[in-house]
Amino acid sequence: MSDSRQIIAGDVPALMRGCAVLGTGGGGEVYTGSLIALDALERYGPVTLTSLAELPGEGLLLPLGMIGAPTVGVEKLPAGDEGSRLRDHLERHTGRRAVAVMSSEIGGSNGLLPIAWAAELGLPLVDADSMGRAFPEVQMAAQYVAGLPLDLIALTDACGSVVLLTPSTPEWGERVSRAVCVSFGGTAAMADYVMTVEAARGAVIEGSVTWARAIGRAVMEADEPVDGLLKAVDGVRLIDGRIVDVERRTTGGFARGSVLVEGLGGDDGRLVRLELQNENLVALEDGEVRASVPDLITVVDTATADAIATELVAYGQRVTVIAFPGDPIWRSDRGLAIAGPRAFGYDFDYRPLERIHARA
Amino acid sequence: MSDSRQIIAGDVPALMRGCAVLGTGGGGEVYTGSLIALDALERYGPVTLTSLAELPGEGLLLPLGMIGAPTVGVEKLPAGDEGSRLRDHLERHTGRRAVAVMSSEIGGSNGLLPIAWAAELGLPLVDADSMGRAFPEVQMAAQYVAGLPLDLIALTDACGSVVLLTPSTPEWGERVSRAVCVSFGGTAAMADYVMTVEAARGAVIEGSVTWARAIGRAVMEADEPVDGLLKAVDGVRLIDGRIVDVERRTTGGFARGSVLVEGLGGDDGRLVRLELQNENLVALEDGEVRASVPDLITVVDTATADAIATELVAYGQRVTVIAFPGDPIWRSDRGLAIAGPRAFGYDFDYRPLERIHARA
Repeated sequence: MSDSRQIIAGDVPALMRGCAVLGTGGGGEVYTGSLIALDALERYGPVTLTSLAELPGEGLLLPLGMIGAPTVGVEKLPAGDEGSRLRDHLERHTGRRAVAVMSSEIGGSNGLLPIAWAAELGLPLVDADSMGRAFPEVQMAAQYVAGLPLDLIALTDACGSVVLLTPSTPEWGERVSRAVCVSFGGTAAMADYVMTVEAARGAVIEGSVTWARAIGRAVMEADEPVDGLLKAVDGVRLIDGRIVDVERRTTGGFARGSVLVEGLGGDDGRLVRLELQNENLVALEDGEVRASVPDLITVVDTATADAIATELVAYGQRVTVIAFPGDPIWRSDRGLAIAGPRAFGYDFDYRPLERIHARA
Repeated sequence: MSDSRQIIAGDVPALMRGCAVLGTGGGGEVYTGSLIALDALERYGPVTLTSLAELPGEGLLLPLGMIGAPTVGVEKLPAGDEGSRLRDHLERHTGRRAVAVMSSEIGGSNGLLPIAWAAELGLPLVDADSMGRAFPEVQMAAQYVAGLPLDLIALTDACGSVVLLTPSTPEWGERVSRAVCVSFGGTAAMADYVMTVEAARGAVIEGSVTWARAIGRAVMEADEPVDGLLKAVDGVRLIDGRIVDVERRTTGGFARGSVLVEGLGGDDGRLVRLELQNENLVALEDGEVRASVPDLITVVDTATADAIATELVAYGQRVTVIAFPGDPIWRSDRGLAIAGPRAFGYDFDYRPLERIHARA
């Protein structure tokens, strides 16, 4: 087993699986991200995993990830120099030295690409992220729940353009970042909630990388991968079945749509519909909510428990849909106001997963 | 007569007329801009007109203006603090002190608003601009003709968001700025080609403010305003008539469309069509080009010679369409590549106005 304080190539298979599960369909498909991370680890060597407590407080933290519709990201790959370009511009702009990279969201390839950027920049990777999962919008971050101002976002494309954005509100941060990302061709590399290590302490979700790796290992080590996964994440099996319909469009910088899963075996005759905006947002059955944001809803391959990204779900896939609770901050009043069902335009109140399924 | 080295309230009527003529329909209607300039001159006192030669070379030059569809700008006014916000962010970002404001384009209200910003910031206004007229796109600037890099654009909205953009090419500068401006609601205040005074020397069009004021005065002092205008700008009268059709839409951050002018009096039976993208780009008659960018085409009121902005032209207006040559840099090969007919997607080569009308 590898040193838990380092990320080496041998960690990538577990991380890839864990990040995909935490992506709830979003954050970008993990296969390409895993190849990019492996390539960087081979070229630059292992990445040190650190905590905010160990870093100098006045240093600059780089919370990095890709923004855009994953349906675009699956075809339009990063150029590779995005991380160093964001670092250079942010160091010059803030007059501070970058001391660590962090995943802005641990879900999907956004949990893997920061490994590559950290390796390339020779910086440690903080064992934390801004979401504890993947969310589609820029302002849906733990720092916003913690009440920190969103006063610096940086975006860059594969050609070299750089935008530094100071939005009037976090919601304007999303709106303008999305427009920039669309103008860049549909995806962009982004540093979101750029701040000092000191400001980030207590305001991000710590342990995310270790958590993703643990989920991946549990899946890989289990005889029955889906059972191993459910046990690891304390999850609920929403349905076993196959995908019988996918409606998906790329619009306004997002992938939006719905996926219909028809039950098989013990679930024969059931139909569960997932609604998605990059990530799976809501699971519905017979007009009832079976799970919703901010709880995590993930579609996995029934045989391998590999999570399937929203841009890769397809008719006929044999899947199991699971749901599990995320970081407790999202269940707070403020967390729900920022990333609960109503934040996505749904006209219902959030009910915790356990309560829905205790009743059932 | 006022001191030519100062701009006072008494200069505004002439400047308003001259800027409107140089706007070739674009740069924003001048009435609101003139009220904003008058208000600022009253509150903060006269603005000193200066040249780049008189300013410290290492100081920061702020080339300011509004970007967006003038059809939006006519309803959505600036909040008033855009100039100081851009100055503050740019000083902090570059580590340089702003020493002067310049119009990014002398045409339309973009020739007037910088007076207000200079007054408010207590900075001199450089007697120069980046275009010698108005052009619809960010990269269509004298600095680009001069081969200077476009490495810093700043945009802000009325709510306080700020974007600093370093584009990979000047054309990407236009593309991303336009997307930001649309996300801001259709207009934005912009500092374009932000650079030191030293870098700007020899790379901008000097004398623009004086030129606009001189045009306005010529119109105001002439017995026959249109004749006075034509004499002042060495222009050609394309047609006397009235507007019989306007097709105008706001799309992608621009006002686009066409205007049809039917001849009256000596021009009876003639029809001239203007095509526009914020500015008037081309005048056509019987399928022949009668004038085109980068030469200036302006629709003026036949009685007063007041230029009519593209967002305000309307059916039935009694107008004279004039055309006149702009700054010689636009007729260079590089100038034509950046802002000639082909740069706007037209499949014909530029022919100088004098040559078209010598033949006629």
